[in-house]
Amino acid sequence: MDSDRLEQQIEFCREIDKEKLITRQTYRSDGSSRENDAEHAWHMAIMTILLSEYANEEIDVLKTVTMLLIHDLVEIDAGDTYAYDEEGKKTQKERELKAADRIFALLPEDQGQYFRSLWDEFEEQKTKEAKFARTMDNFQPMMLNDLTGGKSWRERGVKLEQILGRNRHTAEGSEILWDYAKKHFLEHNVEAGNIRK
Amino acid sequence: MDSDRLEQQIEFCREIDKEKLITRQTYRSDGSSRENDAEHAWHMAIMTILLSEYANEEIDVLKTVTMLLIHDLVEIDAGDTYAYDEEGKKTQKERELKAADRIFALLPEDQGQYFRSLWDEFEEQKTKEAKFARTMDNFQPMMLNDLTGGKSWRERGVKLEQILGRNRHTAEGSEILWDYAKKHFLEHNVEAGNIRK
Repeated sequence: MDSDRLEQQIEFCREIDKEKLITRQTYRSDGSSRENDAEHAWHMAIMTILLSEYANEEIDVLKTVTMLLIHDLVEIDAGDTYAYDEEGKKTQKERELKAADRIFALLPEDQGQYFRSLWDEFEEQKTKEAKFARTMDNFQPMMLNDLTGGKSWRERGVKLEQILGRNRHTAEGSEILWDYAKKHFLEHNVEAGNIRK
Repeated sequence: MDSDRLEQQIEFCREIDKEKLITRQTYRSDGSSRENDAEHAWHMAIMTILLSEYANEEIDVLKTVTMLLIHDLVEIDAGDTYAYDEEGKKTQKERELKAADRIFALLPEDQGQYFRSLWDEFEEQKTKEAKFARTMDNFQPMMLNDLTGGKSWRERGVKLEQILGRNRHTAEGSEILWDYAKKHFLEHNVEAGNIRK
């Protein structure tokens, strides 16, 4: 047993606890508190296990779950950039790359490279797993926004065209889930005025 | 596409959001706020992916991760029972069984049975995956308790013999991780008086 290796792994496990402190814009189902990155990742991991049958192409579930569990770790350093924060998005990539360099390097080299490769794969959006993971990353907050009466959309005055822009690739992971989201999460929130036309 | 099936799956995904509201005794790394069940599950899922190499027997990682992601869902109805709450533990099993009956029945039958079987497997503690999952379920809060200066142990006046009792099976999942925990999470906290002798 390589005790340096185990010590590096535990140090990483300690460090990632900070993801629990990164708050997102999305409200939890109670409609008053906001979820954080760790909760968001947990939620999407279970959803991937249940909903992978709707992926356009058959996906590797463990790989996709792992990708989703770790894909927001960079926000420990870079912070959460809201989907419709156009100013923040200008520097997002640079801030997140720097964070990825630091955080994944805490791990033993093989595991650090594996997690980094999954993070890069998600960012590059070329594989079926990355595409399905992005579908989840968009579907889960729409589900919660709908569940909380569109509160987060209303507070930010979000327009339908912004949501459709954000979701322009969601169908690439799962056409069925994007169709479901349009019909069940968006349509009646537009009608109710929770999403601006 | 079976729209009833998808509707049941989404209803379950909405329902489980409530796990984010179940607070545990363990403090997050900031030392002031407490983690919740969803964060705990997320943390253990990543730790399982990284630390499965120390399992006494080779485990199915996706199965173990899935088991850990869902094993506390019953607390949505049954609440969190603190590890050293002897009164609460008397009714814990009954409360959790009733919750499992309700929550997993929200899913389509095949997926509900699969999740229920994983939950039962964790409770029964006979398989190598269940044993490793329990090791994680004990290791992760010890790691955080150590990281926060033993705050949760001090507040509750926890004794070493209680911790050793709670961990009497931890080595069955991973002898290496139990040895690590004793040496790095417990020993110096006993010396410092954070854990009572």
